[in-house]
Amino acid sequence: MNSKPKVYKSKVVNIKHGSGFTYVEPVNLYGCEFGQNVFVGPFVEIQTNVKIGNNTRIQSHTFICELVTIGNNCFIGHGVMFINDLFSKGGPAQGDQSLWKKTEIGNNVSVGSNATILPVTICNDVVIGAGSVVTKDITEQGVYAGNPARKIR
Amino acid sequence: MNSKPKVYKSKVVNIKHGSGFTYVEPVNLYGCEFGQNVFVGPFVEIQTNVKIGNNTRIQSHTFICELVTIGNNCFIGHGVMFINDLFSKGGPAQGDQSLWKKTEIGNNVSVGSNATILPVTICNDVVIGAGSVVTKDITEQGVYAGNPARKIR
Amino acid sequence: MNSKPKVYKSKVVNIKHGSGFTYVEPVNLYGCEFGQNVFVGPFVEIQTNVKIGNNTRIQSHTFICELVTIGNNCFIGHGVMFINDLFSKGGPAQGDQSLWKKTEIGNNVSVGSNATILPVTICNDVVIGAGSVVTKDITEQGVYAGNPARKIR
Repeated sequence: MNSKPKVYKSKVVNIKHGSGFTYVEPVNLYGCEFGQNVFVGPFVEIQTNVKIGNNTRIQSHTFICELVTIGNNCFIGHGVMFINDLFSKGGPAQGDQSLWKKTEIGNNVSVGSNATILPVTICNDVVIGAGSVVTKDITEQGVYAGNPARKIR
Repeated sequence: MNSKPKVYKSKVVNIKHGSGFTYVEPVNLYGCEFGQNVFVGPFVEIQTNVKIGNNTRIQSHTFICELVTIGNNCFIGHGVMFINDLFSKGGPAQGDQSLWKKTEIGNNVSVGSNATILPVTICNDVVIGAGSVVTKDITEQGVYAGNPARKIR
Repeated sequence: MNSKPKVYKSKVVNIKHGSGFTYVEPVNLYGCEFGQNVFVGPFVEIQTNVKIGNNTRIQSHTFICELVTIGNNCFIGHGVMFINDLFSKGGPAQGDQSLWKKTEIGNNVSVGSNATILPVTICNDVVIGAGSVVTKDITEQGVYAGNPARKIR
């Protein structure tokens, strides 16, 4: 019953990155890929196979899960949470990755702090307001906010 | 005026746990209790007297306060915040624990990322959508979402 | 292409503080100022020129950006995100600080966990509910909640 816990440490491992890659420890980045001039703030976790484009900034406290792709010149605010598992069977997929859904974010997309991004596609030139919950694809440029997020401008 | 700051470090101290307990540092876990096969992701804080059941996963960036109990086979997403102080006197209880309220979460409950859980009871077999704010007891299985969270399925 | 990353570490640097200043590492605090008896929880980032009054508590997972001032006897919950950039040109200000807006929070203000605070003024004796998104100035004491936050009591 009281066996020793298995302890891992947040780390940066098995990543690919272009020039000008900057991050602030502690971060937990594994198996993901960054373009040029990417910044990652502290207290960030980014999972396997995530791809992030050139000149994109990932601010503190953000979590980016597997199956997320983010374009160039994006700004992902603080405390933004990405999701790939919609609990479609009434609970977590528990490793059945066929149940996971992907997120694709275009170029020049800015996501406000504390936003929550369900598995969606977001086109180029979109602003997501702080605290929004994005539940549907966004296919038209503009400013979206609220829970669920709707176009406001 | 300029006395030396008091500096604490996030740590794992005075916990009880079953077999298969796994966590990713840095975490701040103190005085709490975990069943078997529990996983705790990085950047998590869990306070005194919290009890967490078997096979439950606590994902990164989550905060679990005193007076929270979570059952078996639960999934607590990323950036989930639990609350025990409703500021019922117009501000924080400031150590008057008689003003704190408890949260009890059943078995097979999945809480989406960035959800906020006020002091409530949640029954077995419930899904809470990402970004939701749960303000009332949930006594019927189903899927709940929104701010405030309402039954959607 | 594969130049070495620039790695910074979360730290406490160039701060001013009164007596009784306490914090829990890891935190990233730089160029900011704290009154007496201030507490800062783990996984917190506070930026340059932020000023925080006496007896105020900043709980875990919170981010406080430049141009924020917080009064005395305040309680800032867990996972609270402050914002100074409204993406008014359709994207981040990218260092053009003339586009940033300030936030001023009075005394005896309590902000619930996971709240998001856009650049606003909040008067004394206000409670902001957990999970709220504050988008407008608050000039009357009371309890505010929701997305966007509205007066509920």
